[in-house]
Amino acid sequence: MHLTTVILDGSTSAGRVEGDEVVLLDAPDVGAVFARGGAVEAGGSILFADARLAPMVTAPDKIVCVGVNYFDHIAEMGRDKPAAPTYFAKYRSALIGARDDIALPSPDISTHIDWEAELAIVIGSTVRDASADEALAAIGGYTVLNDVSVRDYQRRTTQFLAGKTFEGMTPLGPVVVTRDELGDGSGLAISTTIDGAVKQSSSTSELCFNCIDIVQDLSRIITLEPGDVIATGTPGGVGAARTPPEWMANGTVVRCSIEGIGETVNRCRLPG
Amino acid sequence: MHLTTVILDGSTSAGRVEGDEVVLLDAPDVGAVFARGGAVEAGGSILFADARLAPMVTAPDKIVCVGVNYFDHIAEMGRDKPAAPTYFAKYRSALIGARDDIALPSPDISTHIDWEAELAIVIGSTVRDASADEALAAIGGYTVLNDVSVRDYQRRTTQFLAGKTFEGMTPLGPVVVTRDELGDGSGLAISTTIDGAVKQSSSTSELCFNCIDIVQDLSRIITLEPGDVIATGTPGGVGAARTPPEWMANGTVVRCSIEGIGETVNRCRLPG
Repeated sequence: MHLTTVILDGSTSAGRVEGDEVVLLDAPDVGAVFARGGAVEAGGSILFADARLAPMVTAPDKIVCVGVNYFDHIAEMGRDKPAAPTYFAKYRSALIGARDDIALPSPDISTHIDWEAELAIVIGSTVRDASADEALAAIGGYTVLNDVSVRDYQRRTTQFLAGKTFEGMTPLGPVVVTRDELGDGSGLAISTTIDGAVKQSSSTSELCFNCIDIVQDLSRIITLEPGDVIATGTPGGVGAARTPPEWMANGTVVRCSIEGIGETVNRCRLPG
Repeated sequence: MHLTTVILDGSTSAGRVEGDEVVLLDAPDVGAVFARGGAVEAGGSILFADARLAPMVTAPDKIVCVGVNYFDHIAEMGRDKPAAPTYFAKYRSALIGARDDIALPSPDISTHIDWEAELAIVIGSTVRDASADEALAAIGGYTVLNDVSVRDYQRRTTQFLAGKTFEGMTPLGPVVVTRDELGDGSGLAISTTIDGAVKQSSSTSELCFNCIDIVQDLSRIITLEPGDVIATGTPGGVGAARTPPEWMANGTVVRCSIEGIGETVNRCRLPG
């Protein structure tokens, strides 16, 4: 099943994508559909192509990001294979819809704006201290997250958070594909284009720690809840690792695509 | 004014501390008092000494922590004075009340449990791209946060988050003292005792980046909202920096105290 979250009349609604249409569901977002164990139809449908998409989960309790987690990205960043998953967070106001503009910071704050296509897990059921089987069972589905990064803020201290949680810069969507269609999320092509040019092209089989590993490990630290979002890391090909480095700027269109899910398509826009 | 949040009949209520009593307010927590610009009395009061305290903000939109931010702690950790504040996050389920037990992880996960007394800011009003004056005006008040750290998880990768957000390990309270009493939060004695022995003893004047600096800098990245909690870092004297290192264990009682606010008092407890 392909679930989505749309903005209608100033509030949000979950929906089920069927062909060209979004059948509206009686729940405010995909997180609520998982939390409630499903949702009935609310009556009505809209065209998916015309829908204004919200972040799939509008206010997740947690957004966990995994860094340095693709073998090809680890190589380009000059790092070693980590012994454990590297976690950092984002705050909820970082999230935008899959078709929204990315709100660039003013150029006097930063111009080092980079892309990072990521497979994101949406947790479907509460889980703590999970076995591998329990970890897989707790995954509700998968979506695309573009972990747009403000590289100089990410690197101004040892901790990534500042460069990862700028407001309105993290697209999440366009649908959440339930686990029955994608299993453990491995073997999916993942790519990024910048103004049409391919910059990242890899497979989720390149993940150093896979989705089950991550959910299992996180669940030793904290209870995961329905609607929690876990971005699993990005493959090689980011702008910062290129010679010379490449950055997104006003007007840049970035597409992050994952096989079997779909793509985020976002234009970068300066304020004012 | 000294505000607090108590647990009563399975839900929470904000209160105003007057002498020995908590006068109950018509708001669920201190964050809501700030968000609403105040709260009327709900009728009734309870003894402060007997109250079961909740985290002062029960579900903050953001918990931001600042690392390596006291000159004496920077020295003991062998680090240089940073050029910018070091930020990392916690998730909400890390928080506990000022008198609750700290939920130790099972010893096969970690025994490296450390203390960190911190002055925490509670944001009182929405702020973005703040001047220094606007940053100060956005501070609702101050409280105590014990940033209990699972050091081996903090250090297993470059990113601190894993060791900082273990569930039910971060005391926050016992009151929020409004800004009119404490100004910019500088010049306050801050200390930790472990089973009665003083381990940390410093002053918030040792902060490398002060409360105004932090709010101003964060507000360039993201909008701060009423109820957001910002822990400003810990002074020297943590267990990890001692020779040999000292850790908290089952039964350890840790007190973190800040002049003019009060103290968190928590017993460490193994599960089961």
